Amino acid sequence: MRFFYSDTNKKYDPETFYRKGTVITHPERAIRATILHDALTAAGFSEGPVKDYGLAPVLAVHTKDYVDFLSTFWAKRAEINADSTEFIPTHFPRLHMHHKPTGLEGLLGYYSADTSTAIQAGTWDAVYGAAQVALSAADEMLATGVAYALCRPPGHHAYADCSGGFCYLNNTAIAAHYIGAQKNGPVAILDIDVHHGNGTQGIFYNRGDMLTVSIHADPSNYFPYYAGYAEETGEGAGKGANVNMPLAHKTGDDAYLAALEKALDRIRDFKPSALVVALGLDASEHDPIGVLKITTEGFNRIARKIAAAGYPTLLVQEGGYLTEQLPLNLVSFIRGFKAETA
Amino acid sequence: MRFFYSDTNKKYDPETFYRKGTVITHPERAIRATILHDALTAAGFSEGPVKDYGLAPVLAVHTKDYVDFLSTFWAKRAEINADSTEFIPTHFPRLHMHHKPTGLEGLLGYYSADTSTAIQAGTWDAVYGAAQVALSAADEMLATGVAYALCRPPGHHAYADCSGGFCYLNNTAIAAHYIGAQKNGPVAILDIDVHHGNGTQGIFYNRGDMLTVSIHADPSNYFPYYAGYAEETGEGAGKGANVNMPLAHKTGDDAYLAALEKALDRIRDFKPSALVVALGLDASEHDPIGVLKITTEGFNRIARKIAAAGYPTLLVQEGGYLTEQLPLNLVSFIRGFKAETA
Repeated sequence: MRFFYSDTNKKYDPETFYRKGTVITHPERAIRATILHDALTAAGFSEGPVKDYGLAPVLAVHTKDYVDFLSTFWAKRAEINADSTEFIPTHFPRLHMHHKPTGLEGLLGYYSADTSTAIQAGTWDAVYGAAQVALSAADEMLATGVAYALCRPPGHHAYADCSGGFCYLNNTAIAAHYIGAQKNGPVAILDIDVHHGNGTQGIFYNRGDMLTVSIHADPSNYFPYYAGYAEETGEGAGKGANVNMPLAHKTGDDAYLAALEKALDRIRDFKPSALVVALGLDASEHDPIGVLKITTEGFNRIARKIAAAGYPTLLVQEGGYLTEQLPLNLVSFIRGFKAETA
Repeated sequence: MRFFYSDTNKKYDPETFYRKGTVITHPERAIRATILHDALTAAGFSEGPVKDYGLAPVLAVHTKDYVDFLSTFWAKRAEINADSTEFIPTHFPRLHMHHKPTGLEGLLGYYSADTSTAIQAGTWDAVYGAAQVALSAADEMLATGVAYALCRPPGHHAYADCSGGFCYLNNTAIAAHYIGAQKNGPVAILDIDVHHGNGTQGIFYNRGDMLTVSIHADPSNYFPYYAGYAEETGEGAGKGANVNMPLAHKTGDDAYLAALEKALDRIRDFKPSALVVALGLDASEHDPIGVLKITTEGFNRIARKIAAAGYPTLLVQEGGYLTEQLPLNLVSFIRGFKAETA
């Protein structure tokens, strides 16, 4: 299995993050990707070439307005403050106030869900690069049956029209839509990040050709708080094609694997032509912002079970934050997946 | 004319505020009210007694859920962080993700529109006190025809179910509803704060017995960004009873007074039994976060024109931030109002 990675991710390295009544270093650091890259290389995996697919596959799942905003913000920033190195969204439209403003300051919140998605000079290059990594890996998967996209920043909290939860462009959704178009068939997405894949859910909520299944920590007291509940099952043509499986906080390997089996049952019934795994590693027992208890061995078991389902599978990196175990968990997962498919 | 004030406002004094890509001292400081209080006293105005009206008049315009959240947050804060002295909302529900969570961390954003409304140990006491100041002044106005409520924190950005823009409880709306009930007649609200009174608009958007008129800086590139446009005219029974008059940034006294005349025409046609003025002083040419150009003499002219309309009038303090001119502008306004009604 080859992996795909781009150095463009290093152009974005967020600084401040306000969490639980205090300011901390932003957890979604550039070094995350470096560590994962080096761990895969050291473990003997080889890297595939990243190509440039342009914006068309991005615009297949994101609105042009939002993409235009993201790609031009930095050039226009002097309208707010020419001297700042990082712009954090601070004001947001609500249900009862959502007229689109024209000025950049209001647009920053109009296109964001929370304060976690700062914009720096290199943010657009990094998020554009991550989308190209996902697409390059998607083509590899279409050719060989499996690939791993080392995307950073992550993507699964990004909606069609807004950033949120460290995410800007939804790499998983971009790749899944691309794969569906290439295969001309239904695609299933399995999100195993500790956080609900709310953006991916939102993007495909009305589509019957995309099954979105998310296993995540109960959001009633955990990010993303406002979505990820079992009763969210899709709408219109997508009715029944969204499955949320919230787990009690502190759930460990065995209970997680039982949930995964149910998720794979749902996926099997859907008869997908391919599977995209939104591969967060923040369900780890050691993750600094995680609330589940998956062990390094657990990630291996999870990977084996997913691989055993037998679908052409694209793995897309989502969350997972800095600990000694982070690279070990990735290698454990990838080795488990490879062992089962070899 | 007597004024009404409560020391409870001092229990809340916000610290950090993120604005335009940088962290600044929060503009809505407790010392604002002290300065205004002392200026009125020095100018010879006398202070009336603040009574406690309880929560009933608050719950007439705010949801019980929201008020319960505000009043109990501090006691429950250890659920997020027992050691923090200030909790800033960081995550917010959007149009496409607004399930109500159960945990306190998610609720903080569920009941907030932006990052400006931190909660400290004394926030509830301060906002409860400000509402009682508004109600006490309302009774004075009902008895004497005029009163000034020195409310702090301000209120006009607070919706029925959320804080925002430095505001928690909508003092203006609470007093206006109370006055309408006492008079059993229609009430007009004239908001002359530099920012659109979006919360007040939201609270009364479906009511035909409350005319809400707001003169403010064009929100397309200014807070509150997502509301305050001329096409927002009310809904249902309130259709036509909401009037927004956005002004070009840098508008000065003469053009402002021309807009005010039109606003008073709309109010006259409504035949209100009383008038509540949401009295921001941040349209001042000197205001640190303002974008209009009203002079100290301009505030006097504005007050004279409003007073000349002849309604029983309650003045409720909204915004207006620290400058040497802040107390001068208040005294100029109050003297103008008094001169015209004397």
